[in-house]
Amino acid sequence: MSAVYIAGVGMTKFGKSAQTLVDLFCDAAAAALSNSKIQEVDALYIGAMNPEEFTGESNIAAQVADALGVSGVPALRVETASSAGASALHAACHAVASGCYRSVLVIGGEKMTHLSTSAATRILAEVIDRQERLCGATMPALAAMITERYRQRYRLSSARLERVLCLVAMKNHLNGARNPFAQFQKPITKETYFASKLVSTPLRLYDCSPMTDGAAAVLLTSETTDLVVSGIGQGTGPAGLRERKSFTSFDATRTAAERAYRMAGIAPKEIDFAEVHDAFTPFEIISTEDLGFFPAGKGWQAVEEGRTSIDGELPINPSGGLKARGHPVGGSGVAQVVEVAERLRGNVKTKSKREPRRALAQSTGGLGANNLVTIIERAESVRAQSSWPPTPNYARPIRRQKSTPASPSEEGLIETFTVLYVTPDGFLPPLALALVRDRAGQLIMAQGEDVGHLKIGRDVYLRQLDGGYVFTVKSHLRKVREAMRQLVRGLPSLPRGAKKKTPGRKEDKP
Amino acid sequence: MSAVYIAGVGMTKFGKSAQTLVDLFCDAAAAALSNSKIQEVDALYIGAMNPEEFTGESNIAAQVADALGVSGVPALRVETASSAGASALHAACHAVASGCYRSVLVIGGEKMTHLSTSAATRILAEVIDRQERLCGATMPALAAMITERYRQRYRLSSARLERVLCLVAMKNHLNGARNPFAQFQKPITKETYFASKLVSTPLRLYDCSPMTDGAAAVLLTSETTDLVVSGIGQGTGPAGLRERKSFTSFDATRTAAERAYRMAGIAPKEIDFAEVHDAFTPFEIISTEDLGFFPAGKGWQAVEEGRTSIDGELPINPSGGLKARGHPVGGSGVAQVVEVAERLRGNVKTKSKREPRRALAQSTGGLGANNLVTIIERAESVRAQSSWPPTPNYARPIRRQKSTPASPSEEGLIETFTVLYVTPDGFLPPLALALVRDRAGQLIMAQGEDVGHLKIGRDVYLRQLDGGYVFTVKSHLRKVREAMRQLVRGLPSLPRGAKKKTPGRKEDKP
Repeated sequence: MSAVYIAGVGMTKFGKSAQTLVDLFCDAAAAALSNSKIQEVDALYIGAMNPEEFTGESNIAAQVADALGVSGVPALRVETASSAGASALHAACHAVASGCYRSVLVIGGEKMTHLSTSAATRILAEVIDRQERLCGATMPALAAMITERYRQRYRLSSARLERVLCLVAMKNHLNGARNPFAQFQKPITKETYFASKLVSTPLRLYDCSPMTDGAAAVLLTSETTDLVVSGIGQGTGPAGLRERKSFTSFDATRTAAERAYRMAGIAPKEIDFAEVHDAFTPFEIISTEDLGFFPAGKGWQAVEEGRTSIDGELPINPSGGLKARGHPVGGSGVAQVVEVAERLRGNVKTKSKREPRRALAQSTGGLGANNLVTIIERAESVRAQSSWPPTPNYARPIRRQKSTPASPSEEGLIETFTVLYVTPDGFLPPLALALVRDRAGQLIMAQGEDVGHLKIGRDVYLRQLDGGYVFTVKSHLRKVREAMRQLVRGLPSLPRGAKKKTPGRKEDKP
Repeated sequence: MSAVYIAGVGMTKFGKSAQTLVDLFCDAAAAALSNSKIQEVDALYIGAMNPEEFTGESNIAAQVADALGVSGVPALRVETASSAGASALHAACHAVASGCYRSVLVIGGEKMTHLSTSAATRILAEVIDRQERLCGATMPALAAMITERYRQRYRLSSARLERVLCLVAMKNHLNGARNPFAQFQKPITKETYFASKLVSTPLRLYDCSPMTDGAAAVLLTSETTDLVVSGIGQGTGPAGLRERKSFTSFDATRTAAERAYRMAGIAPKEIDFAEVHDAFTPFEIISTEDLGFFPAGKGWQAVEEGRTSIDGELPINPSGGLKARGHPVGGSGVAQVVEVAERLRGNVKTKSKREPRRALAQSTGGLGANNLVTIIERAESVRAQSSWPPTPNYARPIRRQKSTPASPSEEGLIETFTVLYVTPDGFLPPLALALVRDRAGQLIMAQGEDVGHLKIGRDVYLRQLDGGYVFTVKSHLRKVREAMRQLVRGLPSLPRGAKKKTPGRKEDKP
């Protein structure tokens, strides 16, 4: 086994582009070669989430090889939804470490902006659990439900949570303003943030990463260079929110991080700065906890205290992150490594007190279902080894899960909720969504009868409708009954003869 | 680096299935574990061409991990169109050889039969070069054009070529009839073959592999078992037929084969039997030449002589191949390895004289644009090494190709052609298609003005129409003109007064 080094990195400007996806890949490749001593490649690894539906192309890896004038070399595409770029990078690391290839060019990217938001959202929603998709759940809705749960669990007031999310957005837009490759290059004010429309409570437009065209490339090699990939780790989790044990942490990130740290032989506190997957601002906070930078439930404080700012003790997303740099889904995992490498090489200043030697990139696939952590170090700082260590035994026995959920009981309580204002086709806004735990402990995603009276822990009635589920808040029902009672009391008595004519009204009556 | 062994293999029955894609993957996994000493996995590699469009799922690898009860383990999907399964297997080999994982479960599969042929054909056509797609080219049309060129180059009469293709189809259906996992389990007669409809001249329905649901799994490990993956090789080529140097051979297969043979340290003649990618019957013949089993242009003779039959000297597709076993696109590359392993283990008899020790699987992505070769050997027969050899230097310098084709000249000649009877949406059958070489030597795919007078080498006029190109055979034009001249000569003179009244009728008249 050989160690894996980085020979060159580069990316296109992120944003809207008139170029084809293949041309974006080629531009990123050219940028990576421009600062690499190695100009030859043994193989090409492409990270892309869905070129089939975004641009109507299959077998894109071979196309890119052809466009780069290396038709003939092995070329493949790796996909793990929005972490596809990071997965391609890790698979390429395996190939270099195996001795099969000496240098592998990894390119991640996506072309999305030519589609309508509705069409792009539908494509991105293919990562969502079917039961949850049926209720109208979108990625922002699920992120919002995680956020609400985080707020409740760590006892933040709604106002304080909103201020913290605003701080994350402002920090990343400020960082993006300094990054010539970022999609958004203007700082935003508190006013701009709070004036932006609600996408899914409590998340606003400025909490969500944009649709982006762009590509990034990293040339990996077994030859010694100034930068080493010293740790890689990957973890998976279920697609559905309803299958999670925790709603305020991603197990997949924790698994990935633990493996990457162990492989590199370092601790979280030794990381000088990190690029994390802030597809939604709250995910940046959760990631910094899952990565071990801050204790669980303390990530938001670190933001408030400015510790994650570019001049803080641990800059998070100094590039602007997915939020401001942009998020061409399959490209972000590679772009993070490009940003990390540029800062470790000193080509981009980090403004931190100590000169950075070790940095981390964390990428998320789907709703935290396929996450990867990559640790990059300056070669002279690498502690552990000159070649990759053997894996500890992480093997897991296959035990097939029979996915035959029992019918839920007719009552339950709200585990978390959101009100979605940007709904998928076929659903009218505002749409209340809640994750309901039924009497048997089973979690069900359900649409609300209306958008009022939503609170974690509230009792609800559950019923099936059109293959999905609908919930009604019990207290709400009580209030409706109470209001009716008051109303009926105030009514003049009905004439005697009329009573028999309305036999069904008794139950509605007080 | 460690050697890569096969611990277990298995597959679902191929055909139409009511199960979900994830369930098919799980069934294949269970089948592979049933004959494996190892029951634990470090990671999951999925080969699938397009679950996004076939079944509306993204990030499917994490879903499968969850369904198999190993949520948490690294899981990713690899895609190289119809060779996705083989690519996933090779990427998994790298991961095991790198020492990062000890055992990796590779599962390939696809679910296709629930879609209409038109919808599925559109999805499969996404591998096709855009210029060629614009003219109405489908995979069968392009395969047919390659076939016509092969026939002309190696001087086969049309009748002889058809007989040879019929022999391939009959052989593979006969083999499939013996395979309980095959989609088609009945031998076909010559009469059935010739009674089947023309899809794209000269290819009939029985020359084309079917739409299939199914999955196959291989458990790879670094622990010694009875079977070794002794050679792997991959090669790519351009997507477009118009960019090929050869129309009767796939460079990508030759590249892949050369690498796999070199890695295993064996020669083609040492292979005891092979599973090759017969998505179309002529591709089986071309593959046996590209793999070095027979000289170029002699593969068809080997078929005629029965040398590739199950009891011949080199059985090709003893499982029935893609033709009869079925072709769930992303699954075929893994299914081939399953079939190979079962025969090497003696679980399925090959009927050949010598007991098989070494076998080969060859998978094709798109129109021969991303091809892989895998050599499997019985552990006691492995010649070269107990660990993988370092790679010879295959590296290629990046030299970006500017894809700005000049406007073609107005004349050219037919390099190859077909008449397509099963046309994509928006095109009416019969549709003549030809690859035309213009005066500058540039190749252009064009639609024919009509379906007559097609022959390789014939002169044509070329013109642009609606972003595509249309060709008219010159001799045909001459003939039309000549016929008109004759006609006009033979006409009685029109009375003077009538001339003005029917100015446009001349051309319409007999």
